[in-house]
Amino acid sequence: MDKVKVAVLGSTGMAGQWFASLLENHPYFEVVALGASKRSAGKKYKEVVKWIIPKPFPEKFKDYVVFDASNPDQLTEKVDLIFSALPSEVAADIELKYLKKGIPVVSNASPFRLEPDVPLMNPEVNSEHLELLKYQTRWGAKLVKNPNCTTAVLTLPLKPILDEFGIEEISVVTMQAISGAGFAGLPAYSIVDNIIPYISKEEYKVKVESVKILGKLENGKIKPSKFSIEATTTRVPVLDSHTEVIYIKPKRSVDANLVKDVLVEFRSRPQELSLPTAPPSPIIVREEEDRPQPRLDRYNGNGMSVTVGRIEVMESGRIRMVAVGHNLLRGASGVSLLTAELMLKEGYI
Amino acid sequence: MDKVKVAVLGSTGMAGQWFASLLENHPYFEVVALGASKRSAGKKYKEVVKWIIPKPFPEKFKDYVVFDASNPDQLTEKVDLIFSALPSEVAADIELKYLKKGIPVVSNASPFRLEPDVPLMNPEVNSEHLELLKYQTRWGAKLVKNPNCTTAVLTLPLKPILDEFGIEEISVVTMQAISGAGFAGLPAYSIVDNIIPYISKEEYKVKVESVKILGKLENGKIKPSKFSIEATTTRVPVLDSHTEVIYIKPKRSVDANLVKDVLVEFRSRPQELSLPTAPPSPIIVREEEDRPQPRLDRYNGNGMSVTVGRIEVMESGRIRMVAVGHNLLRGASGVSLLTAELMLKEGYI
Amino acid sequence: MDKVKVAVLGSTGMAGQWFASLLENHPYFEVVALGASKRSAGKKYKEVVKWIIPKPFPEKFKDYVVFDASNPDQLTEKVDLIFSALPSEVAADIELKYLKKGIPVVSNASPFRLEPDVPLMNPEVNSEHLELLKYQTRWGAKLVKNPNCTTAVLTLPLKPILDEFGIEEISVVTMQAISGAGFAGLPAYSIVDNIIPYISKEEYKVKVESVKILGKLENGKIKPSKFSIEATTTRVPVLDSHTEVIYIKPKRSVDANLVKDVLVEFRSRPQELSLPTAPPSPIIVREEEDRPQPRLDRYNGNGMSVTVGRIEVMESGRIRMVAVGHNLLRGASGVSLLTAELMLKEGYI
Amino acid sequence: MDKVKVAVLGSTGMAGQWFASLLENHPYFEVVALGASKRSAGKKYKEVVKWIIPKPFPEKFKDYVVFDASNPDQLTEKVDLIFSALPSEVAADIELKYLKKGIPVVSNASPFRLEPDVPLMNPEVNSEHLELLKYQTRWGAKLVKNPNCTTAVLTLPLKPILDEFGIEEISVVTMQAISGAGFAGLPAYSIVDNIIPYISKEEYKVKVESVKILGKLENGKIKPSKFSIEATTTRVPVLDSHTEVIYIKPKRSVDANLVKDVLVEFRSRPQELSLPTAPPSPIIVREEEDRPQPRLDRYNGNGMSVTVGRIEVMESGRIRMVAVGHNLLRGASGVSLLTAELMLKEGYI
Repeated sequence: MDKVKVAVLGSTGMAGQWFASLLENHPYFEVVALGASKRSAGKKYKEVVKWIIPKPFPEKFKDYVVFDASNPDQLTEKVDLIFSALPSEVAADIELKYLKKGIPVVSNASPFRLEPDVPLMNPEVNSEHLELLKYQTRWGAKLVKNPNCTTAVLTLPLKPILDEFGIEEISVVTMQAISGAGFAGLPAYSIVDNIIPYISKEEYKVKVESVKILGKLENGKIKPSKFSIEATTTRVPVLDSHTEVIYIKPKRSVDANLVKDVLVEFRSRPQELSLPTAPPSPIIVREEEDRPQPRLDRYNGNGMSVTVGRIEVMESGRIRMVAVGHNLLRGASGVSLLTAELMLKEGYI
Repeated sequence: MDKVKVAVLGSTGMAGQWFASLLENHPYFEVVALGASKRSAGKKYKEVVKWIIPKPFPEKFKDYVVFDASNPDQLTEKVDLIFSALPSEVAADIELKYLKKGIPVVSNASPFRLEPDVPLMNPEVNSEHLELLKYQTRWGAKLVKNPNCTTAVLTLPLKPILDEFGIEEISVVTMQAISGAGFAGLPAYSIVDNIIPYISKEEYKVKVESVKILGKLENGKIKPSKFSIEATTTRVPVLDSHTEVIYIKPKRSVDANLVKDVLVEFRSRPQELSLPTAPPSPIIVREEEDRPQPRLDRYNGNGMSVTVGRIEVMESGRIRMVAVGHNLLRGASGVSLLTAELMLKEGYI
Repeated sequence: MDKVKVAVLGSTGMAGQWFASLLENHPYFEVVALGASKRSAGKKYKEVVKWIIPKPFPEKFKDYVVFDASNPDQLTEKVDLIFSALPSEVAADIELKYLKKGIPVVSNASPFRLEPDVPLMNPEVNSEHLELLKYQTRWGAKLVKNPNCTTAVLTLPLKPILDEFGIEEISVVTMQAISGAGFAGLPAYSIVDNIIPYISKEEYKVKVESVKILGKLENGKIKPSKFSIEATTTRVPVLDSHTEVIYIKPKRSVDANLVKDVLVEFRSRPQELSLPTAPPSPIIVREEEDRPQPRLDRYNGNGMSVTVGRIEVMESGRIRMVAVGHNLLRGASGVSLLTAELMLKEGYI
Repeated sequence: MDKVKVAVLGSTGMAGQWFASLLENHPYFEVVALGASKRSAGKKYKEVVKWIIPKPFPEKFKDYVVFDASNPDQLTEKVDLIFSALPSEVAADIELKYLKKGIPVVSNASPFRLEPDVPLMNPEVNSEHLELLKYQTRWGAKLVKNPNCTTAVLTLPLKPILDEFGIEEISVVTMQAISGAGFAGLPAYSIVDNIIPYISKEEYKVKVESVKILGKLENGKIKPSKFSIEATTTRVPVLDSHTEVIYIKPKRSVDANLVKDVLVEFRSRPQELSLPTAPPSPIIVREEEDRPQPRLDRYNGNGMSVTVGRIEVMESGRIRMVAVGHNLLRGASGVSLLTAELMLKEGYI
């Protein structure tokens, strides 16, 4: 099988670097172009990227001449799919240009996430939502989004609990990594020996994106899940991975061991299809009282598993757990890539 | 007025250093002896203390010869009051020895905190609990405890809300400082770029100590407050101050502005008495969406105020707030000292 | 005595915040205007400043309406002196405008530091360099600079050694604080769990500024000191204060105790004049083998002392010491203020 | 070829964990026993080890029953070689017991490092020193040591410079990782937002170990290298890897490009033999002005390369470079393992 030819937009940022790293030797996809801002266009990738992620620089791309991502006409290679790691402020306009040229886009940027005809994908949670694409006809090509990082980590362990026990109410308090703000998004002086108890727009996103992802596809529409959800999101001095303290009020009473079993045994469509980026165990349960820890658990399942611990059923009947997941893998580039793999295997590309 | 003569037990640890710093020039109390472990006994304070807190070393005490705290007979000075910053493992035995010699003890250590006849004091919250001392007759002198650091910070903003609106249910997620584990309690390798989602025994302590402190004194007994309480406690890479995300289900519906007013206006007995360690504003409310922050807010009110922000009434009707308080001042040495000041002014010393 | 009326340019940055804090209740100077970028002009100081330094916000200035620092005509108050904490990129142009209007400028920015007629002041080191101002006639008012932060910390302990023993050669390796890069100058992701072994232009600055400051004023000119100097400057995950490992080859052989004595006893013109910002002991010598430490020693002498330890004469005859000094106090705003105090007392303002 | 059967002493500490990780699937060595303190003896490895290094737990060893390392009689398996990661305080006694039983020991602990008949091995630097073993007859088996971590990183780039240009004098300032103090060796409160300018005994070790390693074997004895060496060693908030600013006074004048060539091209006996743990490029030279950085460069060559940058020939003629190397791989377990591989291939095991 010939590989699908792809381009990465926003290839010099942190999510873009992860795309480059994950795609260097991918069995399905071949990167034929790397896009970035106008300022970088025309220069070699190795000259314009300030490589910072904890993986080796992908030597394969070092001499790729970066093109101006904002102008699809600058893309001289034929391309079957776009991965977008564009900044949210510019993503809407630019992504539309590619759609209008007939190139499908799988995107990590926030615009269009809540549009009724745009699937918001966390593949183990809602693989069937891809069917929405059959009804998405307004552009010349298909647009697929993945959720914000916090929601991607959150909804994975929620899914088997929702299916098994039902959910009435969620409350989540997050401790989010520095890299979630982008490479230069957070001044060092603001976070060393400190916590910032607020992340702009994040709590709203968690709320609205979670119920869409966990919703049901009925008659070509997503019916959002009905539980209520409260979020408090904070920034902590951790490089990568979000830690989330999650309280879940289930519809029926449960015990902790049952919850653990349901989480451990959870497998979904990406595992059935043995997609290359799918972790064998999407949810890893740790029994030690002091786990999960972001520094120790972030690369479980190559950064695609969510690791869960401190599972307890409280006196109130609520399930309490602490989840750790990599914000740039499960929460961004990894989940985009997994989505594209799923699309390919399910015939959407 | 002659000053009350005091000794500090455990004077070389972090809470002990704070006691020494706070007592160097205190209007009511005069330190006449500093106790530490047998190993340090007989040496000068300046030789045995590894000064580490962010205040100048108290030169006044530099040549004090440290005595063996475990043996009250080594205490050659006449002493009216003991401040105990002893490690919890040894505190019970040692504190009893002083009580039996007729010297009252105000203690930061955990043993006896839940005894029915021992007041567990956070002075702005439960000054009237000192009356318990009238019924505490089993030892030769009086024993008073302060709560663990997390509970001290938590119960302060809960108090005016309990009084004004009633409380049905509390849920708290904490992000606790390194110094809460004691100077050598936490290896550096375990916490840099990391979070530890668990602190031994802490969640239980929060639960049982909070309802005692917020309880009512009736017929010589504390009737614990009846709300339920759930806690998840974590350790983060912050030097000092605990950050607590608090959800409160009030008994009647409230709006956020009313909550803010009630918190801002809260004053209590220590403020009425103008006690030297009482902060003018016990609770400080910040309106900025990114406050409180531990590094910026920990020394508000000389470390005795709790700073609160992100106050919101959620869809569920629950009040959400983030509180920051200094774990070694409001949470340990400061609250002990404030308690002793209150005891003196109320005639208990 | 009426206070000297001053304006602060660049008042919202970190050095500007320190100026505001230090000047809130100053005996000689009264802030009548706060300047910042055009974007902030016309708004209240409390609205435009993101207060971040570890001192309380100066309430006195909260309602000051910030003026556009780039345009002296916007300065409606009569002003006797300018303190400039402008970014180096814009400082030259703007400072000249004030000079041309006849207002003297004491500046922390790098342009003009090496001009022959501009005193580069670290008052304990080269108070007599102010005489240069007699020969500085090209502008309508006098311009005085302070050195970069690393050099300010370095030259203070070098001065008594130069005077007493002579210096042939200096080698310095620095570990510099995050705040040296300005509030947003260093992304958090780049420095947590890391060291950056390079700071742009810093090594050159240390070299050329040090020999000027330690030079002799002869016939209206500074004759730079003749020793050679090598510097390697690095950035480390420390909030404030630079740590400098200094090797000095003295002209004559010395022993460590003599070096310590010379450092401890050093006093200079600011101490003689009891200037308000002058630390009683400009150089503090610590004997403990593990001191100085930036977190513990940065506020010695209110941030104006340099703390020195690990003093040893090596087999090579070189003196080795480790120095810690606050980069924003001794290294920026504090040294500017001390310079202005000296100028006032010596009749230059 | 049958694998050589080995036991690891001190297998639960950080160096011990690295041994376990590196040996899980090693082509030459097979771990047949894991030793630890008496307290852990008799329990399974997975129960007693608190796995903390950033590599997956070696599942192969999970059910190994740990034996009391202090008593070789408890070692029930036949063993051909001991890897010792024992704490230095107990290492001398225990290692001798194994030697007396006829089992050779390759050790990371400090005792015996300076004994004239004990090779102190950094294989790329002094592979020929193994010949010393022919003269080492006092015990029933051979003892080989590797240097302290700082010296291992330092001597690697010194070697080609010594060979090519000669060295008169070395001056090194280090910024050393937290893990160099052992897992619990450094309290978190002491190092966050701080530097400790001193590491016990380290400067002496660097001095005496470096000249031994870089010495010449003549007539069955090591003639230490003659250059003088000055070291200042500090601890910084970095998890793993030491950063070293090195000044070298060469015997003849050099230029920077030549130095770079000599470093880049350096290969040695381990590379010739293609030893499994030998990095293809022992020294990696980075041209970017802001490299090497410990977080980005520590795993170069699987943690066995030393990465060097900022190479410059100063006015004084001294070569300046910054080197980064992993303190637990090149500096401890990795270098021990490489030494054992060399011994095997050279016929010493």
